[in-house]
Amino acid sequence: MKELISLGEGSGGRLTAQLIAGIIENFGAQNGQKDGCEDCTFVEGSLAVTTDSFTVSPRFFPGGDMGHLSICGSTNDLAVRGVRPQWLTMGMIIEEGLPREELHRLVKSAAATCAQLGVTLAAGDTKVVPKGAAEGVFFSVTALGHSVTPQPLGMDRLKDGDALILTTSPGRHGTVIAALRYGLDLGGLESDCAPLWPLLEPLLPLPGLHCMRDCTRGGLGTVLCEWAESTGLGMEIEEEALVLHPSVTAICDILGFDPLYLASEGCALIACAPEDADTVLSRLRAHPLGREAALIGHVTAEHGGIVGMKTSLGGTRIVDMPIGEILPRIC
Amino acid sequence: MKELISLGEGSGGRLTAQLIAGIIENFGAQNGQKDGCEDCTFVEGSLAVTTDSFTVSPRFFPGGDMGHLSICGSTNDLAVRGVRPQWLTMGMIIEEGLPREELHRLVKSAAATCAQLGVTLAAGDTKVVPKGAAEGVFFSVTALGHSVTPQPLGMDRLKDGDALILTTSPGRHGTVIAALRYGLDLGGLESDCAPLWPLLEPLLPLPGLHCMRDCTRGGLGTVLCEWAESTGLGMEIEEEALVLHPSVTAICDILGFDPLYLASEGCALIACAPEDADTVLSRLRAHPLGREAALIGHVTAEHGGIVGMKTSLGGTRIVDMPIGEILPRIC
Repeated sequence: MKELISLGEGSGGRLTAQLIAGIIENFGAQNGQKDGCEDCTFVEGSLAVTTDSFTVSPRFFPGGDMGHLSICGSTNDLAVRGVRPQWLTMGMIIEEGLPREELHRLVKSAAATCAQLGVTLAAGDTKVVPKGAAEGVFFSVTALGHSVTPQPLGMDRLKDGDALILTTSPGRHGTVIAALRYGLDLGGLESDCAPLWPLLEPLLPLPGLHCMRDCTRGGLGTVLCEWAESTGLGMEIEEEALVLHPSVTAICDILGFDPLYLASEGCALIACAPEDADTVLSRLRAHPLGREAALIGHVTAEHGGIVGMKTSLGGTRIVDMPIGEILPRIC
Repeated sequence: MKELISLGEGSGGRLTAQLIAGIIENFGAQNGQKDGCEDCTFVEGSLAVTTDSFTVSPRFFPGGDMGHLSICGSTNDLAVRGVRPQWLTMGMIIEEGLPREELHRLVKSAAATCAQLGVTLAAGDTKVVPKGAAEGVFFSVTALGHSVTPQPLGMDRLKDGDALILTTSPGRHGTVIAALRYGLDLGGLESDCAPLWPLLEPLLPLPGLHCMRDCTRGGLGTVLCEWAESTGLGMEIEEEALVLHPSVTAICDILGFDPLYLASEGCALIACAPEDADTVLSRLRAHPLGREAALIGHVTAEHGGIVGMKTSLGGTRIVDMPIGEILPRIC
């Protein structure tokens, strides 16, 4: 029997990592992703590039839409590495029969986010496929920019003792998409979808800023696991420090999802030297997107490669990388 | 009634131009496509970028496959502007249930073409969508590189009297896809799908080299119309100078297609000063991809904005830009 690609391979967990590894190995010497699993790659000097495709369903949701999300998702992958988003390219695969008005709403929304960031659309491409060959429209965005930090930020700078700071309450984007998909009441919850550059830029001059990552597919849990596995360091977080929106807790309880693994689209995990933690927190809290910023734990040389969460009951839970399907098409 | 996107808007003709214009206008000051309808855009100094999505059906065809095509199509858009392809990003939207072996054949094929060109994969993204939400797999490729010509090549350098040279026999890729789609015998015909950089690089030092364009969606006819409309110059070509593969002629006769508008994926139109035409032709013919290179006409200040083709019967036919549907999903 032929082995077929499964939906779980798109969820951002361990199966996605295996799918990507299987693709990348084909490129051999042509593989320039020296930065491994980082969110973007430096190609030449300070110039960095990242790419993302967007298939989110539904395309419009409280707090955003696929146009806005496509600019946030791609430019956030630059921002977390200290790279100012400057240019982007957009490819659109459009299903025949898509209402033109809907396409234009998505495009206007993307353009507004570009304007907010001062990002220039450098190139574009459109393809139209027959009805049924795609679902509505998919966007593919590649974003480019120059690093503005003295040293590149990345997992190789994570250190024993680093403070772990979360910029906002996690899991809201994934929870919104899940609730819409299952017809649940959102209780006022909106996706956190937002461009992170304006929030993170004030942190970049800090010499103790070591590593940042936006918690998209696979959520905060997956980011922590990737950091632990890539560095061999342990990650220790406190359940009580995680500020969950009440609707996130309620919807996850109903659906049986763990908010640790649900995607955010405007939330970053930050690792910095402990002496810079207060400065990072105060600069984050000065921005509307960072008002709920919280110190959630620290990096430790103990239990290397493992993520532990001290639960509110006083025990420690091992946080493992999710394996397969969580929730498809959240971005 | 809602206005819906039609399949014809994806064919590369006038409707595609209108669709793109409608998208770009939303970006206002954020629109960096100063180069208008050129194949790639210079973002900073000599650095150029281009993007393309690939939805070709069928994904495997005589002479290539979607993996190979995705690298050729994207890097050719750099090559025709004198830009050496150096890095690329790949986004993949994969339908649940795609045989893994097929994905890997496509990826291996893309990787082999990257290796041939010395192009580095800088970043990638994979999404998996549920069965029925996409057809098999779509690739989106963004290619980057630096210009190596003293002056950028482009339509603004087209001049009255320029020689028009076609690097090879046109329309083979589109004809192959059409024949497969309609179950016609190919008579040994293969897609011309090939990376153009090795063929075009030797031309780049020539000061009389003005403008190049690969004849993809919409074919040679559309390129000529875009050049004429953008510059206000006339384009004059000779029907007899167009070397058509006998199978291209035969299949187009059966299907009622005009080979002038069928896509090539390894064929460029070149405009150069008349005194450089012989050098261009001899350098092209020295490469396997350019053995059938031919002088097909010239740029003229007469009948501005119009493309005229002298037919083999002695008359002149006006070549207009195709409006809507020619053949969907050729790339």
